[in-house]
Amino acid sequence: MILTKERLSKYLSITREFSESRYINVNPIQRGGVLSKEARMALLEWGDGYSVCDFCPPQAPRLDKITKPPISDFYDDLAAFLGMDEARVVTRCREAKLITFLMLSKPGDYIVLDSLAHYTSYLAAEVVGARVKEVPNSGYPEFKINPEDYAVKIEEVLKESGKLPALALITHVDYLYGNLVDVVKIAKICHEYNVPVVLNAAYTAGVSPVDGKKLGVDVIVSSGHKSWAACAPTGILAMTSEMASKILKTSSIEGDISKRRFAMKELALLGCTVMGAPLVTLMASFPYVVERVERWGEELEKARFVVRELERIDGFRQLGIKPKMHTLIHMESKSFYEVSKKHKRRGFFLYDELKAKGIVGLQPGLTKHFKFNVYGLTWSQVKYFVEAFHDIARKYGVEVR
Amino acid sequence: MILTKERLSKYLSITREFSESRYINVNPIQRGGVLSKEARMALLEWGDGYSVCDFCPPQAPRLDKITKPPISDFYDDLAAFLGMDEARVVTRCREAKLITFLMLSKPGDYIVLDSLAHYTSYLAAEVVGARVKEVPNSGYPEFKINPEDYAVKIEEVLKESGKLPALALITHVDYLYGNLVDVVKIAKICHEYNVPVVLNAAYTAGVSPVDGKKLGVDVIVSSGHKSWAACAPTGILAMTSEMASKILKTSSIEGDISKRRFAMKELALLGCTVMGAPLVTLMASFPYVVERVERWGEELEKARFVVRELERIDGFRQLGIKPKMHTLIHMESKSFYEVSKKHKRRGFFLYDELKAKGIVGLQPGLTKHFKFNVYGLTWSQVKYFVEAFHDIARKYGVEVR
Repeated sequence: MILTKERLSKYLSITREFSESRYINVNPIQRGGVLSKEARMALLEWGDGYSVCDFCPPQAPRLDKITKPPISDFYDDLAAFLGMDEARVVTRCREAKLITFLMLSKPGDYIVLDSLAHYTSYLAAEVVGARVKEVPNSGYPEFKINPEDYAVKIEEVLKESGKLPALALITHVDYLYGNLVDVVKIAKICHEYNVPVVLNAAYTAGVSPVDGKKLGVDVIVSSGHKSWAACAPTGILAMTSEMASKILKTSSIEGDISKRRFAMKELALLGCTVMGAPLVTLMASFPYVVERVERWGEELEKARFVVRELERIDGFRQLGIKPKMHTLIHMESKSFYEVSKKHKRRGFFLYDELKAKGIVGLQPGLTKHFKFNVYGLTWSQVKYFVEAFHDIARKYGVEVR
Repeated sequence: MILTKERLSKYLSITREFSESRYINVNPIQRGGVLSKEARMALLEWGDGYSVCDFCPPQAPRLDKITKPPISDFYDDLAAFLGMDEARVVTRCREAKLITFLMLSKPGDYIVLDSLAHYTSYLAAEVVGARVKEVPNSGYPEFKINPEDYAVKIEEVLKESGKLPALALITHVDYLYGNLVDVVKIAKICHEYNVPVVLNAAYTAGVSPVDGKKLGVDVIVSSGHKSWAACAPTGILAMTSEMASKILKTSSIEGDISKRRFAMKELALLGCTVMGAPLVTLMASFPYVVERVERWGEELEKARFVVRELERIDGFRQLGIKPKMHTLIHMESKSFYEVSKKHKRRGFFLYDELKAKGIVGLQPGLTKHFKFNVYGLTWSQVKYFVEAFHDIARKYGVEVR
């Protein structure tokens, strides 16, 4: 293939059709990652590759030792904010899981996780050679995780393998139904077995108050681009001091000829992690994030309002636990599925209708059920959103009670 | 700790002292990562977390399948540009190495690498439980790698462990002396033993022409924020089809209850990798990068000019192979070390003097020898840079011949 000017021209002005200024975007993974004003400014200032490395201290060359910009302070503040002792910014929430699994488990070990865990929890387990033991959920329509089932599964692992699972993973709020689990109870159960608890707070930390100490967990992983108003890729890895001594273990390898050692570098992090734009946007958004989590109650009000209003449409039913404890909403919509059967655009009619009204983020083609997230929308946007659904229902002869 | 407004205020307007518009920054790791104009524009457009995921195809939900923005095309073009069959963007060059080592080696295997390899090559080996066998260098003043020594080390591994090394790593240009190695010769030697060859092109691909096919390597890893005018963190992983079948192997784990499988997801990549700002800056800079590597010859001219001019200063001597085949330069400067002994700021005098002249990027405190990179400086900046050194030499009574 020859990289002609013509072929390369497509990279020159890549614009985003679905920008915030053009559409109401309710994509379930995107609401918490919209940059703050401060982050947008920081982007231009720190966009260049290794921009944050200008003042890397030569005697301790490591990202978390840099004080200008205040990365070192930020790591402390981040840990404090999450009620943990140590924090690191890594490349993705999934990498935070991989690092944790790698340092806390051995090949063949079991990891207990909820059956609504994100696919990356399974992949991270597979990479480190661990086996997974799933905690069931109650199925349709609630898909609820019963905390006591963690005990059942730990016992099963003990019986099958003769040893405890390396760790238990709790998905704080899942990607599918937006269900919030009872972390305190599960953590207590796991700790009775001395099994470390890792909390996947990708959908919670950064948008709602999350305090690892109060929850009683050992490790928190989260996602900057999902929930902290930061650029991708940013993961957050926070932990107790006890866990830090294992997870942040430094390198011990030595060059056989050069005798070089890298005893300063945190092994599983591969040394430094996220430099430049993503890290600085995370930092610049941090004051805004600290403030916004206090307004979580109002975000829940909006979510419940949306559920209430959409359930006025015949055949609409919110799946997952009620009332909503998160802004990610999974809606069953049997009536719209019936409409789709007769529509020439089939399942795509809903996407088309919404887009025409300036609303995007639902998966194109779905009508039987669909997911969306109303986090951070204004009340007027939320009202416009439900009215759009009411209008579409009426247009196709579906009753709105 | 209480996160008061006062404590948080330090994150609100983080400005970069050493921006391109204020200083000539010759930091050895930073020259190739300065964003292009196009990348800077793309930053603002695509800064929001999962911005590139708006059009993720539901039937094949994976980053490299997205066509809007043209990520799928970009991966093809990137592979073509590097003379390889497949390419992926990962979170860092070090992660590209980790992925490669993980999929090509088993714990206990040997990895043969040059003794000037970057520390992250050692860490990646340590994480996967591999042992390293170093290829020596000739030491002061050239620090040259002899290609035939790869054969010696492969033989040693064979003798010690009874099996071949899992792979051989070649550092195309090293971080310390900026030496270019004879990749063609080394790759040929390794392939005679059927040992796969991984080229670390962090300092070369993106600034100079690198064609994996012509070089005869199996895998190329590189760094977007180091050499492709992209935001951190971006790594490049390119490979032959044969290697892709191993390195990009998809997941096979299954949930024991949910029976969920993730057969679409590339295991060691943990599914999707770099979304948003860093990926889009890499794409937006790509036409510029394709063009700029053709001007590598002129960059070398500048580097050699700088060496020639600095060596006019008494006690200055370029370390590493001559003439320079890269823009990263390591200079011995015994005369400045003598000056530092009597200066009240000791070794920091050089840093102070240069900064006063608008030049930054040398490690503060060093005078006996120091590293810098002149890549992408204009001729007038290059001339200003050497004149600054001449002026400082004269000021402290060091002869300039």
